[in-house]
Amino acid sequence: MKIINVTKNVSLKRTIEAGTETQQQAVTQIIEKVKAYGDEALMALTEKFDGVRLQSFAVTKEEIERAYEEIEEEALAAIREAIENIRDFHARQKRETWITTKEDGTMLGQKVTPLDSVGVYVPGGRAAYPSSIMMNVIPAQVAGVERIVMVSPPQSNGSWPAGVLVTANELGVKEMYKVGGAQAVAALAYGTETIAPIDKIVGPGNIYVALAKRAVFGQVDIDMIAGPSEIVVLADEKANPIFIAADLLSQAEHDPMASAILVTPCEKLAQKVADEVIVQLETLPKKDIAAASIQDYGAIYVTQDLAEAIDVVNQLAPEHLEVLTEEPLTLIGKIKHAGAIFLGPYSSEPVGDYFAGPNHVLPTNGTARFSSPLNVDDFTKKSSIIYYSQAALQANGKKITTLARLEGLEAHARAIDKRLEEEK
Amino acid sequence: MKIINVTKNVSLKRTIEAGTETQQQAVTQIIEKVKAYGDEALMALTEKFDGVRLQSFAVTKEEIERAYEEIEEEALAAIREAIENIRDFHARQKRETWITTKEDGTMLGQKVTPLDSVGVYVPGGRAAYPSSIMMNVIPAQVAGVERIVMVSPPQSNGSWPAGVLVTANELGVKEMYKVGGAQAVAALAYGTETIAPIDKIVGPGNIYVALAKRAVFGQVDIDMIAGPSEIVVLADEKANPIFIAADLLSQAEHDPMASAILVTPCEKLAQKVADEVIVQLETLPKKDIAAASIQDYGAIYVTQDLAEAIDVVNQLAPEHLEVLTEEPLTLIGKIKHAGAIFLGPYSSEPVGDYFAGPNHVLPTNGTARFSSPLNVDDFTKKSSIIYYSQAALQANGKKITTLARLEGLEAHARAIDKRLEEEK
Repeated sequence: MKIINVTKNVSLKRTIEAGTETQQQAVTQIIEKVKAYGDEALMALTEKFDGVRLQSFAVTKEEIERAYEEIEEEALAAIREAIENIRDFHARQKRETWITTKEDGTMLGQKVTPLDSVGVYVPGGRAAYPSSIMMNVIPAQVAGVERIVMVSPPQSNGSWPAGVLVTANELGVKEMYKVGGAQAVAALAYGTETIAPIDKIVGPGNIYVALAKRAVFGQVDIDMIAGPSEIVVLADEKANPIFIAADLLSQAEHDPMASAILVTPCEKLAQKVADEVIVQLETLPKKDIAAASIQDYGAIYVTQDLAEAIDVVNQLAPEHLEVLTEEPLTLIGKIKHAGAIFLGPYSSEPVGDYFAGPNHVLPTNGTARFSSPLNVDDFTKKSSIIYYSQAALQANGKKITTLARLEGLEAHARAIDKRLEEEK
Repeated sequence: MKIINVTKNVSLKRTIEAGTETQQQAVTQIIEKVKAYGDEALMALTEKFDGVRLQSFAVTKEEIERAYEEIEEEALAAIREAIENIRDFHARQKRETWITTKEDGTMLGQKVTPLDSVGVYVPGGRAAYPSSIMMNVIPAQVAGVERIVMVSPPQSNGSWPAGVLVTANELGVKEMYKVGGAQAVAALAYGTETIAPIDKIVGPGNIYVALAKRAVFGQVDIDMIAGPSEIVVLADEKANPIFIAADLLSQAEHDPMASAILVTPCEKLAQKVADEVIVQLETLPKKDIAAASIQDYGAIYVTQDLAEAIDVVNQLAPEHLEVLTEEPLTLIGKIKHAGAIFLGPYSSEPVGDYFAGPNHVLPTNGTARFSSPLNVDDFTKKSSIIYYSQAALQANGKKITTLARLEGLEAHARAIDKRLEEEK
């Protein structure tokens, strides 16, 4: 791993996949086909891309029952407990409608309403992660979204992996369709005979899914389009290099473009971690991916002191930040930009990826400067409530017309004047 | 105005300006120039588009003092009271960092942090609205944003209108630059010698500004790109047609593409409003704009009953909704999609546009299905906080490794195992 003495500004090596022109055109064509031919297009595209001709997209009871026979008891228990933890954490984010009243009869407030319907995209193949289903479905459920539609491409056997089916069923998802790619996104946005359209699409996907989400944005809402994953570890001389190396590698195994970075004022630790990464890398099943990530996007930044290290962390604005310093809790206030902050030696990133409760869908690519983890607010919208009594308008009408006329909007002023005249 | 008996589905005539290819290219070139030449490019582009060669972009104390001499006392008082109301309402939206603790030492929470810096774009010419400045600046201030930068094109005299200068000064805005258009957006996103870059750009603008905002999105965050404005009035037979006509016209005077729509189960009211619109239109200064809007985008929908009328409103998902029925407050729960809900005969839309306190930056074009009024949350971001004690990891580590291995992510599992091994 490269060890770099930091002097001034650092930033993540950002990589936003924009897609090639060919990919863009393919996505445009797929969307047009689904809009024009509905289910028929979905059938044909699924056969083309997933190699399966389906009779029906809907997941059946039998498929779910079979999945329960397949899944290990230990895994099922862990899924259930994770769901409980994630539900508990997100329930604490929920906001209520509120109203404030004044003596003159004025009422002002903010109504919080869940979205009517949400589509959750789940990638196929190796990225069909049960944890990702939980993290996208639960905040929508907690928000009160009535209709949640899950889509994911079928495997070559025409079904989904057992872990995906069991997790969706444990969550209580009722509408599940075996369709993936840009065609699934188009179906969610515009609807087909089988799939009624939804209001917002969330969930990760490959470049075609990302391009399709971008294309339907406006017709429906979408979540952020995630870039490659990142971890930054902030550590001092007391930190355990074995833990740090393991955590950096857990990020690196995701993607050759994932970033794993250590920031420390301790040169000795830097060297130990660099050595330990090589040792641990050797026996990893995903050694090739992790090695490429460490080589191209990994780094160890050595700073003058802890204050400078914190400054570097804030410049990086990482998706995941681990704080392995002597008093990690006291640093929360100094950390300005991070998607999730893991504090202390036992809060390894996978604790949050799978189990603790907070969402693992986090702002990547330095967007933690202005973006938040996926949360219940993302599945609700607000409406302002304004009630003015006759007395309130009498008392304030003249001020309102003054402001309207200052902006040259006479019809605005007259709408108020009509009410004031009525009184005379 | 067209009176239409509603039978089934209705929707807003949506119009999203995508810009012509020439406009797109112009914006790309402007952004590249500003990135390459900084202030020099800003000077040249301001001379080209605004017809003024400025010595410096920064607004001076003298300009502000002159503006106070110009502004009417009554207007100043109204501005001050509006600011107070808007601040009060938005202060109620503010969220605090929270944490939840468990007996095993686990701490989970959500840290709320204001954005570091925000740029507020204020259009030039007739659209240099003091109210718009208040609505964009105040939620950022309430959120705790430290650096707020206001940009707006200079008038031909090289300065800003008095209303704009006074409002910005009353709000306490410290950084103000006389630069507009795509060049201002580029300067905010990438920075120049004079203007340090910011994290998020908000505020309305013409098509060039909108295209520039889209182009810099990702580099910085942006607010929604607003479409033409809409009002929907939901009214029953008790409603006053004079009020309704005035309110429809107050929307129509904004823009020939603005929509003003009445939804009512009462045919008699429909006819009276249609007649009254013609009468009131006659004497409006912006008669031409309002007439075009009513002609092309205005409509009166007559429904079977009030329930059906509410259904139509939810289908339209309007930016502004006025409820002029006998018991307006009892309908709040039935209204699912609306940016702002104005209840009763004295809550005319301008009450909210200028004065009451809720934000007037609202989701247009039917996006109230999934979007919210501009609010304090838009100027903060959240970070998850995760602390696991050694005991908590001991108790839960095996479940986490089970889930990681179910997903085939061995390095994730090992990051936990390294900690569990340490205990033996």
